[in-house]
Amino acid sequence: MLSRFLQFVTISLILRLFIPFFTDSVSLREANAYSFLEHRSMPLLQSLRQGPLKISVIGSGNWGSVIGKIVATNARNSYIFNDDVRMWVYDELVNNEKLTHIINSRHENVKYLPGIRLPTNLKADPSLEDSVKSSHLLIFVLPHQFLKRACQTLAASAGFHPNAKAISLIKGLYVDDSHKPKLSSEIIKDTLGIECCVLSGANVAKDVADGQFSETTIGYTDMESAMIWQQLLDTPYFKINGVPDVAGVELCGAVKNVIALAAGFCDGLNFGTNTKAAVIRQGFEELRRFATYFYTGLVEVVTTFLCICID
Amino acid sequence: MLSRFLQFVTISLILRLFIPFFTDSVSLREANAYSFLEHRSMPLLQSLRQGPLKISVIGSGNWGSVIGKIVATNARNSYIFNDDVRMWVYDELVNNEKLTHIINSRHENVKYLPGIRLPTNLKADPSLEDSVKSSHLLIFVLPHQFLKRACQTLAASAGFHPNAKAISLIKGLYVDDSHKPKLSSEIIKDTLGIECCVLSGANVAKDVADGQFSETTIGYTDMESAMIWQQLLDTPYFKINGVPDVAGVELCGAVKNVIALAAGFCDGLNFGTNTKAAVIRQGFEELRRFATYFYTGLVEVVTTFLCICID
Repeated sequence: MLSRFLQFVTISLILRLFIPFFTDSVSLREANAYSFLEHRSMPLLQSLRQGPLKISVIGSGNWGSVIGKIVATNARNSYIFNDDVRMWVYDELVNNEKLTHIINSRHENVKYLPGIRLPTNLKADPSLEDSVKSSHLLIFVLPHQFLKRACQTLAASAGFHPNAKAISLIKGLYVDDSHKPKLSSEIIKDTLGIECCVLSGANVAKDVADGQFSETTIGYTDMESAMIWQQLLDTPYFKINGVPDVAGVELCGAVKNVIALAAGFCDGLNFGTNTKAAVIRQGFEELRRFATYFYTGLVEVVTTFLCICID
Repeated sequence: MLSRFLQFVTISLILRLFIPFFTDSVSLREANAYSFLEHRSMPLLQSLRQGPLKISVIGSGNWGSVIGKIVATNARNSYIFNDDVRMWVYDELVNNEKLTHIINSRHENVKYLPGIRLPTNLKADPSLEDSVKSSHLLIFVLPHQFLKRACQTLAASAGFHPNAKAISLIKGLYVDDSHKPKLSSEIIKDTLGIECCVLSGANVAKDVADGQFSETTIGYTDMESAMIWQQLLDTPYFKINGVPDVAGVELCGAVKNVIALAAGFCDGLNFGTNTKAAVIRQGFEELRRFATYFYTGLVEVVTTFLCICID
């Protein structure tokens, strides 16, 4: 009982340290006024009394492996998170050896992130259901065409913690039958019935894996989620900013790639930088219109965009 | 008397055409509601009854020569502007020949914009005072260290039209004795006692000279100025956007170059694009803070910045 109490006090003190992380971020300035201990609606932080939070990474490609490396490293250095981080790997044979076996024995994803050493506490798991068992924190980082199927499997197994939270690192948009875009975060939320934040940024996976300084943005649903995901994902070389605008972050993250293609066309056509600048600027304006047409109530798309994706 | 009346009717009809130009520009949407004929405070448009507006370009470097080319071309194709566009050239010898003489005889600024043909109605003038005589529209496009001296000379001679308007294309900031930045537009306004707009953009002079598509932004003081400068400067390849924020446009235009240097350092140091993106984004934030610290009442610096200078 005493050890439980000490654990709670320790965690409380650590969580107090969260708040300064946010002060750099314009939209999170209000967090200074927050005292999480007084806040009544933080079920996941309350469930820390039963032990540290379990993390699952759903996906193991290039970006999934980098994020797996980051969260497993942070989890190992924190009292809040369980050391045992599970990563769902769609198993395949690489030179007649199972990829899960290679990752768990050699700690390297030789197929999708060769040359980068993964932490030993990042465990590859070929079973989607097993990989999320009792998990509090679900990190979705798989190609978007596999998301619906994965969510349906997870909803049927219902193995994750009842207070679980999700975050989507998935790029791209679904377009439903009414020709409206549907966000990955909406699919996760609707299928699993849990809150879903998003993370997006000008983040080339290999550069992040190499520890080159990067920024990224979390669009958050509530302050508890913001604090937990920031604590889990922030590193000295991978800096998290937060904005309370899930749809804005996800849309900007997806549509910016269209603008990037147009900018690339300018290079390919040997246009000058003036023209490229004009294309990028008008692309921003198109993105703003797209976002506000399909999603009302976005905080401020121009600001969100500046947070995410000047690339 | 009849010809005067017809001229006024013609000009009125032409000016009505101004308004649609602005509708693309977010911040000028309100211009649709404008009817300049009913507006009482448009002295320069009223003075069109005495004849077309005279234009002076003060400065003849790289950018000055490009702008001289644009305004002289537009002036020649317009009833509103006088064909005879004067460009003040600080005279110097180029291969034992006066630069003014070269420009006026061969229609090329061989020193600062070689290879670009200048319109024949752009007349180089070695006398600053003479170049602005009776002029309605003063375009300042000289290195900022020469501005104060030039303004003092012009104020002493007072040869320009009493209703004259100015626009500054000058980059850079003065810092006064109290360590506050002073804008070129403020120096012009304070020394000459006339309104001053600014123009700034991601505009590489040579690319504009070559007719590569570019956008630029005018920060305007009043609707009359916005309409006149837009009409004088807009071309199919040099697209003018307007925002009612002189200080914002001028500050963003100046400070963006600091960010551009930092981005260049990233390239030089072989940092990845993630890091460069982070430097640019944080540069935007610094710029926003700088602008709002020194200048209150700016419309919206983030938006202004996006209008001006994604480069």
